[in-house]
Amino acid sequence: MEQFTSGLLEWSGVRFTCRKAGKGFWLRSIIVYRLPWTWKCSKFLIKLIHAGLNTIAMIFAIVALVAVFDYHNAMNIPNMYSLHSWIGLAAVIFYSLQVFLGFAIFLLPFAPVTVRAAFRPIHIYSGLTIFATVIATSLMGITQKLIFSLKNPAYSASPAEATFVNCLGVLLLTFGILILWMVSKPQWKRPPEVNAKVLQPFGATPEGRKGESTLTDGSNGVKSDLKVNSEAARKQNLKLDEAGQRSTM
Amino acid sequence: MEQFTSGLLEWSGVRFTCRKAGKGFWLRSIIVYRLPWTWKCSKFLIKLIHAGLNTIAMIFAIVALVAVFDYHNAMNIPNMYSLHSWIGLAAVIFYSLQVFLGFAIFLLPFAPVTVRAAFRPIHIYSGLTIFATVIATSLMGITQKLIFSLKNPAYSASPAEATFVNCLGVLLLTFGILILWMVSKPQWKRPPEVNAKVLQPFGATPEGRKGESTLTDGSNGVKSDLKVNSEAARKQNLKLDEAGQRSTM
Repeated sequence: MEQFTSGLLEWSGVRFTCRKAGKGFWLRSIIVYRLPWTWKCSKFLIKLIHAGLNTIAMIFAIVALVAVFDYHNAMNIPNMYSLHSWIGLAAVIFYSLQVFLGFAIFLLPFAPVTVRAAFRPIHIYSGLTIFATVIATSLMGITQKLIFSLKNPAYSASPAEATFVNCLGVLLLTFGILILWMVSKPQWKRPPEVNAKVLQPFGATPEGRKGESTLTDGSNGVKSDLKVNSEAARKQNLKLDEAGQRSTM
Repeated sequence: MEQFTSGLLEWSGVRFTCRKAGKGFWLRSIIVYRLPWTWKCSKFLIKLIHAGLNTIAMIFAIVALVAVFDYHNAMNIPNMYSLHSWIGLAAVIFYSLQVFLGFAIFLLPFAPVTVRAAFRPIHIYSGLTIFATVIATSLMGITQKLIFSLKNPAYSASPAEATFVNCLGVLLLTFGILILWMVSKPQWKRPPEVNAKVLQPFGATPEGRKGESTLTDGSNGVKSDLKVNSEAARKQNLKLDEAGQRSTM
């Protein structure tokens, strides 16, 4: 029996560790495009790192999920009854879908540029939405755990554990808000000139693109004497910029 | 005693109604800049509507909060022990601060354009963050309420009420995701040409701005023969565009 209990505790630990580790890898993958040192690397390399970190995070999330079900079954706790579990499972399913679709569309060389451009804003928004949803799911999980685990004194008596875990919840929310702020800040986007090559299929010369990017960026100190000689190219570029698609191409 | 109970129920109803009504007004204020019919109205009028709806929502939120404390005190339930209450109170405080600062900086004519431009991205991001936080707080509140209220059968036995309220929680989350998608879509932003007048202090002629906006928007069918004759003006305009500041000026 003792062995059984320690095994369960270990499995519960796996769940906890996997969740934490998964979130760690995921966070790194979210902000990888916002790290200035990555701007010197090729877009393909950064895509590979982004996809790799997300795949590791997905594996951890799935192992954590299996651990949850096994733990519930061993402890005779019903599965999938709470709002926390519904939204949590939906988040893991959508996250896996996001990783697979991202891999198929952006990493494999088969998808045409138009499909990539159309899917890009959806990929970015759904990634950030899943991240925010996971924060909300964690907060619900924390609430549930505190109500179920604190009995004597109860959660409502505000014992030290309750205050401590509430603080962790507030920190988790603050952390999520800061990450989303970093990701949504337009000035911290990967500079568009890096993507000049990828954008070529839209009909602009690389030189035209370069001239444009120094205009758009506004922060690049090197003023080249390259002139924007294609009005159509600039329109296309600005249109892409409006759609928030250029810097993540 | 009966009168007391019915009074309490009424007060609990006030809390519920105020929360719902507050959210309704708030939602309208969030998406007011995304409604095409408002693009014909002056920016000042839309600002007034935005501020007015937010003020009404804030009043409802505060009345709901007072109702919560009164209800807890009358029922001998401790106040402010849960993570839900911590984050909920913080959200209401930040929301009130957001309304007051927004009023002082964007509606009153005293703040200089540089202060408005610097504060704008913070105002937009914090508004959307508070909205997302309130959704998370509601989900935590729903979880708590289901655990405390469902006793026989318990929440874990998945009675019909639990499934029904879980579905409401999922719908609330989906609704929040759709609203944030509407607000973050760059194509649905108020077109920049409407703001030409307000942008004048930055050093561009209104004609130059108009010529620029048709380029940037890309969806305007009317092709004017106005030429962009000021390189500095275009750079400034693009820089503002990059900072996500132009269309909300």
